[in-house]
Amino acid sequence: MSYTTEVFPLDQWYVAGFSWEFQDKPVARTLLGQPVVLFRANGTLAALEDRCCHRQTPLSCGIVEGGAIRCSYHGLLFGQDGKCTEIPGQSHIPKTACIRAYPLEERNQIVWIWMGRTPESRPDSAAPAHPWHDDPLYQFKGDVYHYKAPYQLVHDNLLDLSHLGYVHTRTIGGNAQIHVEADMSVQNGENWVRVIRHMRNSQPPPTYLEAWPFQGRIDRWQEIEFRISYFLIWTGGMDAGTGDLEDPERTGFHMRGFHGITPETETTCFYFWTISSNRNPARPDMVETIHRATAFTFDEDRLVIEAQHANMARFPSAPMTWIQVDTAPNHARRIISRLTSPRGIRVGV
Amino acid sequence: MSYTTEVFPLDQWYVAGFSWEFQDKPVARTLLGQPVVLFRANGTLAALEDRCCHRQTPLSCGIVEGGAIRCSYHGLLFGQDGKCTEIPGQSHIPKTACIRAYPLEERNQIVWIWMGRTPESRPDSAAPAHPWHDDPLYQFKGDVYHYKAPYQLVHDNLLDLSHLGYVHTRTIGGNAQIHVEADMSVQNGENWVRVIRHMRNSQPPPTYLEAWPFQGRIDRWQEIEFRISYFLIWTGGMDAGTGDLEDPERTGFHMRGFHGITPETETTCFYFWTISSNRNPARPDMVETIHRATAFTFDEDRLVIEAQHANMARFPSAPMTWIQVDTAPNHARRIISRLTSPRGIRVGV
Amino acid sequence: MSYTTEVFPLDQWYVAGFSWEFQDKPVARTLLGQPVVLFRANGTLAALEDRCCHRQTPLSCGIVEGGAIRCSYHGLLFGQDGKCTEIPGQSHIPKTACIRAYPLEERNQIVWIWMGRTPESRPDSAAPAHPWHDDPLYQFKGDVYHYKAPYQLVHDNLLDLSHLGYVHTRTIGGNAQIHVEADMSVQNGENWVRVIRHMRNSQPPPTYLEAWPFQGRIDRWQEIEFRISYFLIWTGGMDAGTGDLEDPERTGFHMRGFHGITPETETTCFYFWTISSNRNPARPDMVETIHRATAFTFDEDRLVIEAQHANMARFPSAPMTWIQVDTAPNHARRIISRLTSPRGIRVGV
Repeated sequence: MSYTTEVFPLDQWYVAGFSWEFQDKPVARTLLGQPVVLFRANGTLAALEDRCCHRQTPLSCGIVEGGAIRCSYHGLLFGQDGKCTEIPGQSHIPKTACIRAYPLEERNQIVWIWMGRTPESRPDSAAPAHPWHDDPLYQFKGDVYHYKAPYQLVHDNLLDLSHLGYVHTRTIGGNAQIHVEADMSVQNGENWVRVIRHMRNSQPPPTYLEAWPFQGRIDRWQEIEFRISYFLIWTGGMDAGTGDLEDPERTGFHMRGFHGITPETETTCFYFWTISSNRNPARPDMVETIHRATAFTFDEDRLVIEAQHANMARFPSAPMTWIQVDTAPNHARRIISRLTSPRGIRVGV
Repeated sequence: MSYTTEVFPLDQWYVAGFSWEFQDKPVARTLLGQPVVLFRANGTLAALEDRCCHRQTPLSCGIVEGGAIRCSYHGLLFGQDGKCTEIPGQSHIPKTACIRAYPLEERNQIVWIWMGRTPESRPDSAAPAHPWHDDPLYQFKGDVYHYKAPYQLVHDNLLDLSHLGYVHTRTIGGNAQIHVEADMSVQNGENWVRVIRHMRNSQPPPTYLEAWPFQGRIDRWQEIEFRISYFLIWTGGMDAGTGDLEDPERTGFHMRGFHGITPETETTCFYFWTISSNRNPARPDMVETIHRATAFTFDEDRLVIEAQHANMARFPSAPMTWIQVDTAPNHARRIISRLTSPRGIRVGV
Repeated sequence: MSYTTEVFPLDQWYVAGFSWEFQDKPVARTLLGQPVVLFRANGTLAALEDRCCHRQTPLSCGIVEGGAIRCSYHGLLFGQDGKCTEIPGQSHIPKTACIRAYPLEERNQIVWIWMGRTPESRPDSAAPAHPWHDDPLYQFKGDVYHYKAPYQLVHDNLLDLSHLGYVHTRTIGGNAQIHVEADMSVQNGENWVRVIRHMRNSQPPPTYLEAWPFQGRIDRWQEIEFRISYFLIWTGGMDAGTGDLEDPERTGFHMRGFHGITPETETTCFYFWTISSNRNPARPDMVETIHRATAFTFDEDRLVIEAQHANMARFPSAPMTWIQVDTAPNHARRIISRLTSPRGIRVGV
């Protein structure tokens, strides 16, 4: 008998992609170490183990046929529930001829997959909503990034914005001192961590000035919320002194970032992100500008995170110095640690 | 004391290449996990371990000199029997200065190497003949393919032609149903498996029509014979009702495929193939057309087999469903399994 | 308790690079398995462990600031002694916030690093001088090569010039027999090996003829000296019979090769080389010609050494035949073996 520590939190909704990625061809994607094929058949999106039960040929090489997917090698046909419904050359379909199907939910153009601890596990809740993707006052654009780094290094990065002054000096960062001196609070609960940074009466960064008709200095916010498999990052600003920073209904320029961090393997992950911003009628093309600027800063992050990961492998036993900016990342690490701790589940023999 | 299961059948003839591959330069090729240098010297082809006995420099980087090969580093000279005959700077040649030589036979333009269980093992038979390569009524052309997949997955592929309707729909396959409904029999013996498929009164595929002056519908055959390290695959057709499909002397259009499957490593292999067809005087260029069409279908096979192999590694413990089309492949797997089983040979210490 | 054999001789000066490589940007280089960042700050060159003590981000991605280097992620600042002097967001600097600094000496444009057995180890001598780099009678040029082969295979190569007749037939080698018949002596001491080869009254090779106004046949020398982490290789010639080959003050054409061989990992190494030659006023451009010819022969060596290394991995247990040309290489191997033998140091637990 052996007890194990799980590598990733299970029985959770994870982002598997965005609606627009799944057209007529099957898509192969490894999620939490499990090779999955996603395919849209008769309008419905499904996720199966990416293997034919006959000889393990990837079903992602196959062809969608009606509501099913056909293996490209010997022609076995599988329904969206993972059950084989046709074996060319024989009429009997053994009961064992089936593969795992993953619960899937498409909501606000985000494709959520339920990664259960067992194949029988079913969602305990609806998948998270992200209404800004369908809000007529907002426009959004996003992308899928692949990281050669473990998912928790991305958590660390998003929960500690002190890096803005060093990684992003040339883009959104500006002067490092502004970020170090920001008015910051960290809150946390059982399954969430929140970092709130308010920078009152500060100079708006160039992208803000382009996006919104500010009058002068602004009251600026950065609110980051960690929710196990994704982050919500609200940033924005309003003319200084014209509203209450603490009021969620505050006016001004809003950027609402959605960041789904889905492990691919223990050492790689996907980063599914969108940035939604409220429309400025005078600048209908701002969504492109904001997307481009955001993508650029994410490229900067990716470079430093992948370099950090590669270097950790070169210094496997070097000690680490904990510093004050680690407070929020450490809250998130404790949550992940609790969710992946031994649970009394018997695995193996 | 330890007994082992061998990875490949040993004490067997394997294809090492085709005659036209070996001109004035040594060729390096790893066969059954053993790096071999093949070189033609004074007209005779030889195969040695691909290492100088001094410091393991590959002899395939060396130069053929008379009937011998000279190492390109310190100039040691080796005869075709693997014995060192010259060490620059000294007159004494130690008895240990020798490397393994492999028995070789060049026959009908196929180069056969005897992969013995021990360096002393000698062939128990002549290498297989393939007279169609030298038959004036036939013309042929072939190629060497490299597969990133274990050799037995290629055996499976060749012994189960039900895949034609799915993998080769756009080429030789045609309608999947034709292949599923073919009149098929499987025979097997101690060291061979034979699959015979007859498709009477069927529409000739495009390549057939181009190659031979058929009158209309044809009686078509596909006969596959597994012989441990190679396959013979006879396909062809004759005008429907004009002869006996069971008669080996039958008339019509004949394609005689030779397929040498030689493991390179446990997870890769070489595929040495030729296709010989009887000459149609009206179409002297048909050999090119047939070769091109065959090569195209082999590329299709390679893609699906390599994808299958990569996927098996991603699902190391997933169960497999056995289906009816596996009958012949399973016969071949049992033969390989018997030939690689523990034999009471003591290895290691 | 466990005793270990070290992989590389430690407590030694090794070449880390040449002065001209280190300008305004930090340089990452793994030396003896240890990732090091080299950077010039306020004119002084320093070498630190290539990691920030906070989260292992490579400092080589950082920015030189005054006499220090700043991490590009969260902005920690490190002095040339490896001590952290600034942590953004907090005033307290923990004592543990420091990384290893390596003793460094820049001498005659060669950058030497002291690779100590422990971080506290300090040099027991000045770094080696190479005055020809700063001698007005000489000119020199060099390069940094990377080898996919262990450092001792390069030692073997440089200490056995019998390979000239086989590897370098088209360049400096000429007739193999000349090299085999050369008047050769091997001397050795505790930490050095010397090979002296004199070829009297021989035809000067093409490069020599171009470089120096020889009258006809020459007395030629090749003197190779192994010094653990580097070689000095003196080659040259003078008009036959015009001087004493044994006299270090002999006249004629001198090429003084410097060859620093620094392991990168157990299976790869750096080859830092320069070739200095005395000036021929009639041919001021000769340094370029000599550098080009030398680089070409080193490329030939690299090819054969990397092929040898790759082949040793394919024949892990094949025996080796020792021959007479191995005498000097074996002296060097015994020195390395002694310097890396168990020393009574307790490692691990």
